Amino acid sequence: MSEDFNQWYTEIVQLADLADYSPVKGTMVIKPYGYSIWENIQTYLDKKFKETGHKNAYFPMFIPKSFIEKEAEHVEGFSPELATVTHAGGKELEEPLIVRPTSETIINHMFAKWISSHRDLPMLINQWSNVVRWEMRTRLFLRTSEFLWQEGHTAHATKEEAKDEALQMLDIYEEFAQNIASVSVLKGTKSEMEKFAGATTTYSIEAMMNDLKALQAGTSHELGQNFSKAFDITFSDENNKLQNPFQTSWGVSTRLVGMVIMAHGDDKGLKLPPELAPHQVVIVPIIPNDKNKATVMEEVDNLSKTLSNYRVLVDDRNEVSPGFKFNEWEQKGVPLRIEVGPKDIENNSLLISRRDVDDKQDYPIGEAKSKVGSLLKEIQENLLNVSKSNMKNNTTHVDTYSDLIDTLNNKKGFVSCFWYENREDELKVKEETSATLRCYPLDNSETQKSVNTEKKQGKFAVFSKAY
Amino acid sequence: MSEDFNQWYTEIVQLADLADYSPVKGTMVIKPYGYSIWENIQTYLDKKFKETGHKNAYFPMFIPKSFIEKEAEHVEGFSPELATVTHAGGKELEEPLIVRPTSETIINHMFAKWISSHRDLPMLINQWSNVVRWEMRTRLFLRTSEFLWQEGHTAHATKEEAKDEALQMLDIYEEFAQNIASVSVLKGTKSEMEKFAGATTTYSIEAMMNDLKALQAGTSHELGQNFSKAFDITFSDENNKLQNPFQTSWGVSTRLVGMVIMAHGDDKGLKLPPELAPHQVVIVPIIPNDKNKATVMEEVDNLSKTLSNYRVLVDDRNEVSPGFKFNEWEQKGVPLRIEVGPKDIENNSLLISRRDVDDKQDYPIGEAKSKVGSLLKEIQENLLNVSKSNMKNNTTHVDTYSDLIDTLNNKKGFVSCFWYENREDELKVKEETSATLRCYPLDNSETQKSVNTEKKQGKFAVFSKAY
Repeated sequence: MSEDFNQWYTEIVQLADLADYSPVKGTMVIKPYGYSIWENIQTYLDKKFKETGHKNAYFPMFIPKSFIEKEAEHVEGFSPELATVTHAGGKELEEPLIVRPTSETIINHMFAKWISSHRDLPMLINQWSNVVRWEMRTRLFLRTSEFLWQEGHTAHATKEEAKDEALQMLDIYEEFAQNIASVSVLKGTKSEMEKFAGATTTYSIEAMMNDLKALQAGTSHELGQNFSKAFDITFSDENNKLQNPFQTSWGVSTRLVGMVIMAHGDDKGLKLPPELAPHQVVIVPIIPNDKNKATVMEEVDNLSKTLSNYRVLVDDRNEVSPGFKFNEWEQKGVPLRIEVGPKDIENNSLLISRRDVDDKQDYPIGEAKSKVGSLLKEIQENLLNVSKSNMKNNTTHVDTYSDLIDTLNNKKGFVSCFWYENREDELKVKEETSATLRCYPLDNSETQKSVNTEKKQGKFAVFSKAY
Repeated sequence: MSEDFNQWYTEIVQLADLADYSPVKGTMVIKPYGYSIWENIQTYLDKKFKETGHKNAYFPMFIPKSFIEKEAEHVEGFSPELATVTHAGGKELEEPLIVRPTSETIINHMFAKWISSHRDLPMLINQWSNVVRWEMRTRLFLRTSEFLWQEGHTAHATKEEAKDEALQMLDIYEEFAQNIASVSVLKGTKSEMEKFAGATTTYSIEAMMNDLKALQAGTSHELGQNFSKAFDITFSDENNKLQNPFQTSWGVSTRLVGMVIMAHGDDKGLKLPPELAPHQVVIVPIIPNDKNKATVMEEVDNLSKTLSNYRVLVDDRNEVSPGFKFNEWEQKGVPLRIEVGPKDIENNSLLISRRDVDDKQDYPIGEAKSKVGSLLKEIQENLLNVSKSNMKNNTTHVDTYSDLIDTLNNKKGFVSCFWYENREDELKVKEETSATLRCYPLDNSETQKSVNTEKKQGKFAVFSKAY
């Protein structure tokens, strides 16, 4: 990792059995170990979505081409990435079908049918699905032609309610990133240039990876009335007047698995936050010779029962050595490893190793349960603290345009400045540095003299190279 | 329902907010109420799959056309139903991509990469996904161009292990149907003509709908070495000899939602088994005038807290009458309705109505929790018993070919007979009656003189018209 981050990433994804290349260019196979992380992500978010009143539904993945074309910015943004079904059932289709790149169009077509009164609002729908965006340069989890995600789609009576919704979902994404994925994120507004095709405002959470590049980890959009007008969604308000609702959409994807890898990993491999780890604890029996076997396995069995509240794996393979197992589970990022051997049993103790830091200690067997609980909690917090420090220590503030360009070119990390929103200037920065305006952070509403336009005040903005 | 079953089905699916037609011919939108039933199905099955050692993974939905063509029977079976992506990212693709109709080909391509030693076996994978089969005549949930399902794919060292696996999964489907969906099913082997394209043996569960037609509710296949040979999957056995593994695949789909509707519904609408019902109990406050409101709502609130172990909905809408609510929740099949009004509170009682039978009784408020628990259990069992009787009372045994044809043509329901496996005869029955051989039930291995071939013994078989 410390030598060649990209190479490390590509290798660790495969070595740790997270994903594999598939025969179709740009797509991936998510292997059980990687999929299990995604399931843990889903479980947490799905619960939060339901607690906040959203309901899951499922919409067809094939969208008539004419639908995509109804919202002008939307079609412009997505056209280059579309996959098209032209033949089905042995015949050429009258109208080609687009494989959904996102579902605003088909969902809003249905909303027009389902919404008629203010009593039908807010309409709060979420969908877990696969989507296709034909990308030229792909990378496992981060950017693949097909990926898995959730997409929320809502309709509200007022602009204010829609804004509250978009921000509420952004908060849920932030909580997930920090408390579950242990990744510190910057919550902010996208510039006009970087916003979602069809949105009035796009919010995102931006994380810092271990190579100090940014990763957009989730987005939440206010769509205004763009889609409700394009798809003719109307409701009669309390005064019986027809109105177009205000809408939002928001999503996170399997890209989050990539985030977890790149935000926490090290030269040895993954470091998984306990909340997302498929196995939170691996128990490795140490059996010097056959006469110890029964005693050791009995203790291992007891321990595994004691820890049944946690996701525990007993690695009792005979064909590989304990050393091989240690390496494998280190590479796969299991937060805690417990060794159980004859000497440990004799001493009534267990050797517990943390993956997040270089720490290996003996603990009394009787304290196994409470100790594992507290250590997992510590690891969860420590990973977040490291991530927080990483972002803090690698963000540089600049006061001039030339410093912005110099810093982006010569120093890794985030660069903050006061920026006067301007598309041409933003494009220029991108050309000169390959960095982009990641967001205007929501927690800093200060304005100051901008770095890019003399005599204009700028908003606090963060630039970075990004995935 | 009693007058025109097909019309009833189409209407109730929409009236009960289960699904809606989408703008793309043959596809459907699964609405939140219908999707919630699917989620309950998923939760149960996913747990069972994991308990039996299977792991979830995700494979790309685009399959190179050449893959589909590798297994001869497989391509023949699926060719007429394929949807093809010919253009992506603004260009024509070099090789067209098939949208998966099922994933044997792409999964086995990966298995060839992942399996090398007997230590890699058994490989037990499941996938929850969408698939596409371009159908000419579609019906919501039962047959749509795109549907949601799970597909298990496994590889084993021996034929026997593969058979055990296929039968184990069939048992899980049977348990689901009977204990969770309250639908009695016949477990059996498919005829050569009806088996899955590429399987050596197909097993299925067959249910009887309320119009006495059969519905194939789940299938489990032994694939032999057909795919492992076609995709060159090999493993070195314990003697270091290269072998092709034996494989299985098995699946159930959103069609199960259709089964639940058609197996239990009546003229009033759905009857949902409590295990699958999105709302197991609906509480309807009865508020004759505003001065009762606070008292009633307080009691409703208490009751809803008392019943927090169940999926309870409080229908406190002001804009519709209690009668309107009763009809709506009857139509939507909620197992129990509880009315709470001032008189009930005065009498310290609750009026509980069952949806499965015409039963409405007062119970002491203090017994609400235990009573709701026992009533839900009773409903779950009663629906299964009704389904069992339905199948039993509507299965006719015949001893001659002419009786088989007559009975299939003139009487609704299943018809059993002893049948000598023969493709031409089976096709003849289909032509003469439109019925098909549903299965050779596993619980009857008797052989007797066959109805179709003089001097040949036949196996016990069940014919029926089917969805």
